[in-house]
Amino acid sequence: MTKDVTILDVSLRDGSHSVRHSFTEAQVSAAAKGLNAAGVRYFEVSHGDGLGGSSLQYGLSAVDELKLIEAAAAQCTTSEVAVLLIPGIGTKQDLQNAVSAGAKMVRVATHVTEADVAAQHIALGRELGLKTVGFLMMSHMAPVEKIVEQAKLFESYGAEAVYVTDSAGAMLPPDVTARISALKNALQCDVGFHAHNNLSMAMANTVAAVEAGATFIDGSMRALGAGAGNTQTEVMVSVLEKLGYNTGIDLYKLIDTANDVIAPLMQQPQEITAGSLVLGHAGVYSSFLLHAQKAAKQFGVDERDVLMKIGELKAVGGQEDLIYEVAQSLVKA
Amino acid sequence: MTKDVTILDVSLRDGSHSVRHSFTEAQVSAAAKGLNAAGVRYFEVSHGDGLGGSSLQYGLSAVDELKLIEAAAAQCTTSEVAVLLIPGIGTKQDLQNAVSAGAKMVRVATHVTEADVAAQHIALGRELGLKTVGFLMMSHMAPVEKIVEQAKLFESYGAEAVYVTDSAGAMLPPDVTARISALKNALQCDVGFHAHNNLSMAMANTVAAVEAGATFIDGSMRALGAGAGNTQTEVMVSVLEKLGYNTGIDLYKLIDTANDVIAPLMQQPQEITAGSLVLGHAGVYSSFLLHAQKAAKQFGVDERDVLMKIGELKAVGGQEDLIYEVAQSLVKA
Repeated sequence: MTKDVTILDVSLRDGSHSVRHSFTEAQVSAAAKGLNAAGVRYFEVSHGDGLGGSSLQYGLSAVDELKLIEAAAAQCTTSEVAVLLIPGIGTKQDLQNAVSAGAKMVRVATHVTEADVAAQHIALGRELGLKTVGFLMMSHMAPVEKIVEQAKLFESYGAEAVYVTDSAGAMLPPDVTARISALKNALQCDVGFHAHNNLSMAMANTVAAVEAGATFIDGSMRALGAGAGNTQTEVMVSVLEKLGYNTGIDLYKLIDTANDVIAPLMQQPQEITAGSLVLGHAGVYSSFLLHAQKAAKQFGVDERDVLMKIGELKAVGGQEDLIYEVAQSLVKA
Repeated sequence: MTKDVTILDVSLRDGSHSVRHSFTEAQVSAAAKGLNAAGVRYFEVSHGDGLGGSSLQYGLSAVDELKLIEAAAAQCTTSEVAVLLIPGIGTKQDLQNAVSAGAKMVRVATHVTEADVAAQHIALGRELGLKTVGFLMMSHMAPVEKIVEQAKLFESYGAEAVYVTDSAGAMLPPDVTARISALKNALQCDVGFHAHNNLSMAMANTVAAVEAGATFIDGSMRALGAGAGNTQTEVMVSVLEKLGYNTGIDLYKLIDTANDVIAPLMQQPQEITAGSLVLGHAGVYSSFLLHAQKAAKQFGVDERDVLMKIGELKAVGGQEDLIYEVAQSLVKA
């Protein structure tokens, strides 16, 4: 018996980080055409930090994301365009604009303990007739019970699927199995999983998620994404096929798109560098890396010790000052 | 309870493929110094195809491998230098020369069904006082019973460990678990595992091997190796540590060596390209890729179809003519 898995490609959203938000309409159009031809059900297009992310703080987009969404939607005959919305970065107006540009799915993303900030955005997604999904970022930081509680909130707001998101690439397969299984037991809606490859475990974590019952899985072509990148979509199609799952995707057409459209636009390879490995080892979000490097330099300590300590302290976005305090404390110790 | 795992780094041997056999004494010396400082027990130095591999057919080495072995051995206070020997490529004289240059371990490699050609080389390794290991290449091509039979041959010749080697990066964790468990049951000697990352499963396969009882594991810094590369050694140390294993390796020192010595000498990133993915998917050895591309071009067919068919036919080294016959047959079909 083959089981169906729905793959959502995030090359044109998470990959935005990796190309410093430089996507052009021509690039997005070519990638969208290939994803549609390959039979990928959904693919995501937005700034790396979601709708409204283009800013000095998160990086300016070369091209307005609404134009990119329009360019993508124009290529879709069977695929549909998804957008990411992080409340606090993107607004409800941004979502309405994205829908006018052709978006058919919204994924509302919050820190793993803060699903409650997403209630209105989930409700709006449903009102607008979108496929509406909750996205629990940095899921490695919360115990299973907390994730179940937060996912139930998302479901209660109207989410049709809830994702476990390993933003830091810090999970190992048993962590994934525990979280996905618990959500499958606790929720009526679909369960999804989004991986990063900092510990070289994105593919294994993805397989663990599918085996535990996840039916929505993210990937990106050539692994294009933040940090060490994501689960590589075209490789995932091969692996899932070998394991007896049905993705509905034409492997050759997807390989062609990865090879002919994505590979040429990459600004650096998606390798596991010293920085991305330590982020995954410590379980720290990638946006902290530059601060840790600066703080380490300022106080003459090893940036890896700073990141390890930040991981222990479970720091979250907004606590960047803590990084400097940690570096200072390492001097004294 | 922590369990001990012995990591063998192959950056300076499998990585030779990735840098087209261009290693210099200075590069090898710097890498060896770092590996020794990090506490890596063994590391391998030879042409990518083992001792004597430097040739027009397999690629000429820029520097005589004996000089590279000497340069590596000169840096060792606790680490020991291993060499790979593929009977038919390297000779018994090559092994004696390598020992004179400072090698302390030999790994004798054969196709998974041909361990019998290694009897004399294993015996010589023991005679010379080397740590002596058997290495079953393309292990995905043989059923478990065949691998057990071949590994027992290696043990009967005197091998102190036998490796399951996933040369094509075609295995998934259940394949690894089945093979390693069977060898653990059938052999008295140690069992090892060597991965390639064509299906993005090198790390997961490595963990599966360790969990099934393998005590020798190969890796390469920055994944430097043939095809999509190997299990990334510094990432493996992080992952095994998280899972409660003791590698005896200093993670920071290994990261430094990967970052400061290996990264700068890489000629291309160790990504999973269209070519390496299809090789892994089809289970075909990387040396067939160029032939498949040529044959596909000559007959106007898709090189991927050629590789898939070659995989089905279980072609082995020496059967390169078959590739052209397959391409021709695809035209007719």
